[in-house]
Amino acid sequence: MHETTPATHAAQTQGPIVDIEPWGLRETGLDLGRIAVSESLFALSNGHLGLRGNFDEGEPRAQSGTYLSGFFESYPLSYGERGFGFAEDGQSVVNVTDGKLIRLLVEDEPFDVHRGWLEQHDRFLDFRTGVLERNVVWRSQAGRAVRVTTKRLVSFTQRSVAAILYEVEALEQPSRVALQSNLLANQPQDSESADPRKAAALGQVLESELSTGHDLRVVLGHRTRRSGLALAAGMDHVVDRTHCDPKELTQVDDDLGRVTISTLLEPGKPLRMVKFLAYHWSGRQSMDWLRDQVDASLENAIGAGFDGLVKSQRRYLDRYWRVADFQLDGDPELQQAVRFAKFQLLQASARAETRAVGAKGLTGSGYDGHAFWDTESFMLPPLTYAKPDLVRDQLMWRSRTLPLARERAQQLGLRGAAFPWRTIHGEECSGYWPAGLAAFHVNASIAHAVVRYVAATGDDGFARSHGLEILVETARLWESLGHHGPDGTFRIDGVTGPDEYTALVDNNVYTNLMAQLNLDAAADAAERDNDVAHALGVTDDEIARWRVAASTMFVPFDERLGIHPQDQDFLTHERWDFDGTPPEHYPLLLNYPYLQLYRKQVVKQPDLVMALFVRGDAFTAEEKERNFAYYEGVTVRDSSLSACVQAIVAAEVGHVDLAYDYLAEGAFTDLHDLKGDGAEGLHIASLGGVLGAVMFGFGGFRDHGGELRFRPRIPAALTRIQFPIVHCGQRIRVVIEPGKVTYALTALEDGGDEAALRPVTIHHEDEAIELVAGEPVERPLAELHPTFVPTQPAGRAPHRRALRPLS
Amino acid sequence: MHETTPATHAAQTQGPIVDIEPWGLRETGLDLGRIAVSESLFALSNGHLGLRGNFDEGEPRAQSGTYLSGFFESYPLSYGERGFGFAEDGQSVVNVTDGKLIRLLVEDEPFDVHRGWLEQHDRFLDFRTGVLERNVVWRSQAGRAVRVTTKRLVSFTQRSVAAILYEVEALEQPSRVALQSNLLANQPQDSESADPRKAAALGQVLESELSTGHDLRVVLGHRTRRSGLALAAGMDHVVDRTHCDPKELTQVDDDLGRVTISTLLEPGKPLRMVKFLAYHWSGRQSMDWLRDQVDASLENAIGAGFDGLVKSQRRYLDRYWRVADFQLDGDPELQQAVRFAKFQLLQASARAETRAVGAKGLTGSGYDGHAFWDTESFMLPPLTYAKPDLVRDQLMWRSRTLPLARERAQQLGLRGAAFPWRTIHGEECSGYWPAGLAAFHVNASIAHAVVRYVAATGDDGFARSHGLEILVETARLWESLGHHGPDGTFRIDGVTGPDEYTALVDNNVYTNLMAQLNLDAAADAAERDNDVAHALGVTDDEIARWRVAASTMFVPFDERLGIHPQDQDFLTHERWDFDGTPPEHYPLLLNYPYLQLYRKQVVKQPDLVMALFVRGDAFTAEEKERNFAYYEGVTVRDSSLSACVQAIVAAEVGHVDLAYDYLAEGAFTDLHDLKGDGAEGLHIASLGGVLGAVMFGFGGFRDHGGELRFRPRIPAALTRIQFPIVHCGQRIRVVIEPGKVTYALTALEDGGDEAALRPVTIHHEDEAIELVAGEPVERPLAELHPTFVPTQPAGRAPHRRALRPLS
Repeated sequence: MHETTPATHAAQTQGPIVDIEPWGLRETGLDLGRIAVSESLFALSNGHLGLRGNFDEGEPRAQSGTYLSGFFESYPLSYGERGFGFAEDGQSVVNVTDGKLIRLLVEDEPFDVHRGWLEQHDRFLDFRTGVLERNVVWRSQAGRAVRVTTKRLVSFTQRSVAAILYEVEALEQPSRVALQSNLLANQPQDSESADPRKAAALGQVLESELSTGHDLRVVLGHRTRRSGLALAAGMDHVVDRTHCDPKELTQVDDDLGRVTISTLLEPGKPLRMVKFLAYHWSGRQSMDWLRDQVDASLENAIGAGFDGLVKSQRRYLDRYWRVADFQLDGDPELQQAVRFAKFQLLQASARAETRAVGAKGLTGSGYDGHAFWDTESFMLPPLTYAKPDLVRDQLMWRSRTLPLARERAQQLGLRGAAFPWRTIHGEECSGYWPAGLAAFHVNASIAHAVVRYVAATGDDGFARSHGLEILVETARLWESLGHHGPDGTFRIDGVTGPDEYTALVDNNVYTNLMAQLNLDAAADAAERDNDVAHALGVTDDEIARWRVAASTMFVPFDERLGIHPQDQDFLTHERWDFDGTPPEHYPLLLNYPYLQLYRKQVVKQPDLVMALFVRGDAFTAEEKERNFAYYEGVTVRDSSLSACVQAIVAAEVGHVDLAYDYLAEGAFTDLHDLKGDGAEGLHIASLGGVLGAVMFGFGGFRDHGGELRFRPRIPAALTRIQFPIVHCGQRIRVVIEPGKVTYALTALEDGGDEAALRPVTIHHEDEAIELVAGEPVERPLAELHPTFVPTQPAGRAPHRRALRPLS
Repeated sequence: MHETTPATHAAQTQGPIVDIEPWGLRETGLDLGRIAVSESLFALSNGHLGLRGNFDEGEPRAQSGTYLSGFFESYPLSYGERGFGFAEDGQSVVNVTDGKLIRLLVEDEPFDVHRGWLEQHDRFLDFRTGVLERNVVWRSQAGRAVRVTTKRLVSFTQRSVAAILYEVEALEQPSRVALQSNLLANQPQDSESADPRKAAALGQVLESELSTGHDLRVVLGHRTRRSGLALAAGMDHVVDRTHCDPKELTQVDDDLGRVTISTLLEPGKPLRMVKFLAYHWSGRQSMDWLRDQVDASLENAIGAGFDGLVKSQRRYLDRYWRVADFQLDGDPELQQAVRFAKFQLLQASARAETRAVGAKGLTGSGYDGHAFWDTESFMLPPLTYAKPDLVRDQLMWRSRTLPLARERAQQLGLRGAAFPWRTIHGEECSGYWPAGLAAFHVNASIAHAVVRYVAATGDDGFARSHGLEILVETARLWESLGHHGPDGTFRIDGVTGPDEYTALVDNNVYTNLMAQLNLDAAADAAERDNDVAHALGVTDDEIARWRVAASTMFVPFDERLGIHPQDQDFLTHERWDFDGTPPEHYPLLLNYPYLQLYRKQVVKQPDLVMALFVRGDAFTAEEKERNFAYYEGVTVRDSSLSACVQAIVAAEVGHVDLAYDYLAEGAFTDLHDLKGDGAEGLHIASLGGVLGAVMFGFGGFRDHGGELRFRPRIPAALTRIQFPIVHCGQRIRVVIEPGKVTYALTALEDGGDEAALRPVTIHHEDEAIELVAGEPVERPLAELHPTFVPTQPAGRAPHRRALRPLS
């Protein structure tokens, strides 16, 4: 039976934007109404350089975007009434010099999809090659037909390089064509918006300092006006002269370099050109230095050639997929979405190195390009068990910003380090402190990421050189933030937890439990590496204080309802009038004042339920079930970080099909543009959460205290779920099928030396299992008998994917 | 014995700015370092037009100021991150066209106190005439001596008129002098400041629309750029030709009108000139209309002449002092300060009519000229019992803004009316919502002011025509803001009480008790004037709901400490580290983030203690004493609204000398510039509070439920306190002396018909007394035995005035 429920999001009814493919995104035909989203979906990035999926000819476009990790402009933050310690400056990702542009003229008519006839348009983003292909057949108003075939990549192996292969062929009759390959700075941006989730519009922020051109190469150098960062961008071209002998012209201006290639094309004899791009930026190096780097990178790229770059790209991705691929049989669309998530997580972080990965990766300018707790709490967990070196990079970034975080703590009258709620460079950029500065839990997320990384890798070197310092400084922050009440409990007042529809509360359970983890982890680490701790000024007395704070941490509990309040007062508040809230009033934050949201029981995104996941060791099974059921009734999922966490906990407490619905919502957030803000970039943390929903949700994988525990489940709609866990250089393969699960210990790569593998203890449900190479262990799935039927607020139930007929 | 305590405010050590006089302020000698404060102290205003006490020649100056009640420019409020319902526009009082300027040249040398020798400088502001006199003898660098004598007034009887009598006399030898009498628009303002208490700097906001001049008259017409308000300002001059025949020149430009009068002066034959000023503004009328009004006002003023204006002024003030004067024997400086307060309260409100009285009156641009709850909670109580017609004016202003308040409530998803936290015109202008929008208690202040006014005057007409509607709409607001908890109590969550070092709390006791008063008062009034209530849509069911909400109002109480928490969680918070806070870190809001202040037990200004006063009927005597003692220990008095309230409650609970210290602190806030921000204008609400400290503090006067109760006390330093209470057109005279109090019922004016007076029931302590004309009643003062010794946070004890030797 096919049950239908009212669609909760308008966009959902529009259906998917891409065709279902196992290993890529395919767009067939051009839907001008959805290019804003497809620009994000087809964005290419290696974590250092990102190109939005704009068309080669530049228009039509929703938002043109070329981004460099860590490259930002700053601007003074204004306030109606300023207060002490308010963030002074904002930072916003810059749309840098655009090298994607290749405009085409056919017999003096510009190739423009608004004119003439677009007879074919398809694009394919291949997750295995990282190449975006485009095939277009266009007939001009005058009747001239051309086929344009392009391939675009941002290299994973040559960090600063992108390349575009551009081929144009005259169909039916000879045609004179001209390609204008541009390098353009200071493209106009969108105007300012009242939506806080969008980027600040700063106007033309790049000042020209250098522009050179010779042969088919142009290099432009610019500097941001206020943050003073220097950027050099270059392009060079290799033209295939097999079929024609084009005429070339190179022009250079302050903000524009242009290479024009024109020729008469005979049918069947295409013009083929490769455009190489290179980008370097620095806050310290001179423009000359950067120009030289750009020239060198272009030489290297030309040396490798387009085919060479593609080959390296494929090799890089093959290695990734071998340790990272999640397989879900029975739902091809979900399989595609999960691979999309895996691919995007890599694109966001692969070569970010020690620069922040923003909430949108490099796919759009949403949230000003800022990094939040999203990084440590949603992106890093799945990466930890697939490519832990990228996790180390991100933690190194946080480590490098410790001086700023210490300064911030001091400014706030606190000890230790206070990492920013949102930032690019490391300074606090939150312009609304109750939902920014007060969200101290970001510090525990960072500490937890250190703990998880060290436990999953055994990287003691990092633990000593950088990890311990992060743990110590965040523990100091918590100790100074809290206090012991008259009853001896350690209390943390006046902070904001993950749920942004509540702020400035006392004893937020999530925050307190994460602080507890943080304090204990710092004490453990300081005791383990006592010499390093000593050098950081840690005394036995300080460690003892952390232990006492952790062990006396106040965790409020409501005896009447048998659940935990989100914060000590949450359950005394009035319930939001969900029945009186029309669907178009979601997300609530765009239609109701914070004042009203804060005063009532309404949850934007899991907070207490997030605690059930990350601090699952602090709750009994019954508490988890009761809590989950209660909070389902007041959670509206106005954040893209909601569904994936609800999926994880729903699976654990036995609502496996509900978990599946939530997994699907998370997985299709971008692919179906469920939030309606796809133009701003992809929801990278949500995509991380989707992977979490598979491994932590259906896999039931937890690592509390470094112990590896699985409580696997499988929804009715799937026939098989397989995922790997990379742990200390080995791989645990988990295969879940209806009724059973199989665990196997294997080498990191297929065909690796299995004899050298060390046995690993895992837990299946509550049974300890010693996993040995070559001896897969099969166990039946636990039987689940949930007591409560969770219901969501009126109109906020997830789309029912689980109950669709299996085809 | 003369005990000294460390001065808590740097300015306090500088001593008084003016000489001690019973009926005025006298400045002897010029202290250039303190002109910012003296400009505020010597400001003249009638509540419609205000002139700061700038020197006639315009410089030196700290801030030149000419203000018109209700005349503002608007500007868009910026936010680092904007949220739904944030105030869109700010409003700022405008420094309008300056007519005070009269520059003097002596033999081509400008009279400039920086040059030559100032041989005499004194000023006297006379509380009985409302005239500011200035006497100066100046010798130029070239040795020419002149005496300048000026008198300035802003007329209480001719609302739009000010006048300046200017006399200059050559001493020792004949001298050629020129007077330049200016009318100047768009004077440069101070630059922007980070201090939230200062005004927004908007630059040149006046656009010229009209400028005319003939003979010695100039009229300039301007319009504000954004708020679009029209203003016409005019000056005319009458020159006394007894001793000389001066030459005259009138010049007119867009932003400047100038009349120059020059002559050769013989010693003993002064040049005397009167400058008349008139100001009219409107949001509706045409510039022509306003110009005509200005010309007519100037004609009237010239007709009355300077002496005529002075006579009217004196008559107006005589009438005021007869019903308003408070006498305090034993402390001449305090007597002066209390009369200063009385005088300033009148200056702020006399002719404001139905426009808002700002927190600074018209004495400076602090707080952007906004009106707050200060008006209803601090200024109106003493006015209610002296000049209730001015209270009615202010309540009429609120009534006129009801449509805006209803709109605001609707925007917030609430019912009834939500009056703004800060405004000039009626729209919410708070740029920081947790300490603005969330301070709903302003609505109860307004409702309470209605109740108090009606009870004190018996003005049933107002009650029916305007009062009831205010009560009903605010009661509706409270009902929609709160909710009944599972235990049936009515709870108000997520609001901010008077203490701005705490925000967004649940069940703030002050707010809940004031809401209770508001709900009951609305129910009472609706039952009394049922026909009017019915027309406002009030049903019996609605009245019943208000009654239930009021009777089940949740008022948290801490059994362990035997006191009321400021809000339900306040007492679980960590105490502020007062010992670790250096004196220069006060006020805390300029040195610590809200984040820290909100999370801790530290009180900016009385909140629970304010409730002990205004809702004294809701507490037992023991609760008052215990509560007062506790909150003394955490209250830092970073607000000028602190000391006066603490004085009132200290007196009630028996700490009479402490009350005296607090009264003095309030009384000298402006006169000694204790807050260091005197340049921004006077603290009018604090001055109102000072009067409250006398009548409600030492008088122990309360009017809970319309009952008149006195619990008089007298501090050791005073020999006699006398104050009148105007009540329903009669006067109760209270005289407190050591050991006894005398109550007498008298006519409103001395010599009035006593036979017609109606007997009044008052309470002395808990004894009911029927007060009859001609039969004063004497009673002994109650003996006081307070149990607790209140102590203030380290370094925050008030200056010990009470223990000074009586001289």
